[in-house]
Amino acid sequence: MCIAGLGPGDESLVTPAVSEALAQATDVVGYIPYVARVLARPGLTLHASDNRVEMDRARAALALAATGHKVVVVSSGDPGVFAMAAAVFEALEGQPHWQELDIRVLPGITAMLAAAAKAGAPLGHDFCAINLSDNLKPASLIEARVRAAAGADFAMAFYNPRSASRPDTFVRVLALLLKICGPDRLITFARAVSTPEERIRTVTLAQARPDMADMRTIVIVGNAATRQVGRFVYTPRSALAAASS
Amino acid sequence: MCIAGLGPGDESLVTPAVSEALAQATDVVGYIPYVARVLARPGLTLHASDNRVEMDRARAALALAATGHKVVVVSSGDPGVFAMAAAVFEALEGQPHWQELDIRVLPGITAMLAAAAKAGAPLGHDFCAINLSDNLKPASLIEARVRAAAGADFAMAFYNPRSASRPDTFVRVLALLLKICGPDRLITFARAVSTPEERIRTVTLAQARPDMADMRTIVIVGNAATRQVGRFVYTPRSALAAASS
Repeated sequence: MCIAGLGPGDESLVTPAVSEALAQATDVVGYIPYVARVLARPGLTLHASDNRVEMDRARAALALAATGHKVVVVSSGDPGVFAMAAAVFEALEGQPHWQELDIRVLPGITAMLAAAAKAGAPLGHDFCAINLSDNLKPASLIEARVRAAAGADFAMAFYNPRSASRPDTFVRVLALLLKICGPDRLITFARAVSTPEERIRTVTLAQARPDMADMRTIVIVGNAATRQVGRFVYTPRSALAAASS
Repeated sequence: MCIAGLGPGDESLVTPAVSEALAQATDVVGYIPYVARVLARPGLTLHASDNRVEMDRARAALALAATGHKVVVVSSGDPGVFAMAAAVFEALEGQPHWQELDIRVLPGITAMLAAAAKAGAPLGHDFCAINLSDNLKPASLIEARVRAAAGADFAMAFYNPRSASRPDTFVRVLALLLKICGPDRLITFARAVSTPEERIRTVTLAQARPDMADMRTIVIVGNAATRQVGRFVYTPRSALAAASS
């Protein structure tokens, strides 16, 4: 069984390893919009399921693999970053027969790195990736991590910044960032990267508004040295040079 | 001009976007071992240079691009993660004619995500990426960031953990992690991922020794919930479930 990353959307960012796994698969399992990216063909069964049923999906995929099917579980981006790989390994708990299966994770281009590439190099120095969905963790933990990351001057990438059902988290995170990092810190909103709907914009925290992000947006906040040059935003490689400039 | 990521080593992890850029290039610029991964062909000039001359290399690449050459600057992994993209943007400072060039960053599979994929899903929850090289930043900043990341229970990936010239940094970081995270915390040493010399091993912090890492190793430290199942290591998606388990 493979757990494969389809990258952010553009087919030219899908690795040959993933394309080859899909070409050999008998079954593709995943969230509806990701399975929709896989070309139908004779001999391939597509199993598309809804969001927030990751554990059911992982168990269904393992059960198919255990009966000899060549299964590929697909995620957007990288399967190891806020995606299906952790769910599949969680589903192995207490299931020794599933643990013996040939399970491989095939990495993909994760959204924050595709977004960073389009903006320039805002993650060119130490950085953190934080999932702002409070679906699977308390909001207090999100705020503690944002506080720690901003306090230690990491650049930050935020996944799942905002949904209609819980818009408050991102409002609070933006307020916290403004307080810790100050009004001039650069923040990049990268929506639907590498798709026809792509939109990238970089503003200061003073200019940032919560509605600049939705669930298809990756938000990247620079560190204290992050700067703009021409149409690009980048974080210098040298913390010493940055501190003295 | 493109700044392209070649991924961790395995050709099946090079994206089609990068392969296409290399196929159209007149000049490839980069650190010796990365340029060595590009197939020579008529019409392509390979410009290989030594490590620690990133700014010279960036300026040479931009000068070539400014005279009409189709230049690809190559990095291992992803060019935006501790690699050439930030150096190229830094080289644009004060050079308005270079800022007008068509410059694109083509993302690649970065080492920590290739390493995580081979181990399981240790970066399946919020995580940080920290470069332990003190070549470009003070050791005090490295320790402050490790302290902040471990204190807020991020999983952590360390790039460039150890070299012969500065073995002390990693010794101190391991001691700090042991103190903050305790002896049972899982740590994965992933050496030369996706190459014939690949070696992955996961131990506890109590068992970890500095010489388990060299400059070709990515080190991944789990968060408090990271666990092993069968031969895999993973970090559960749910912080709530982890806290209550």
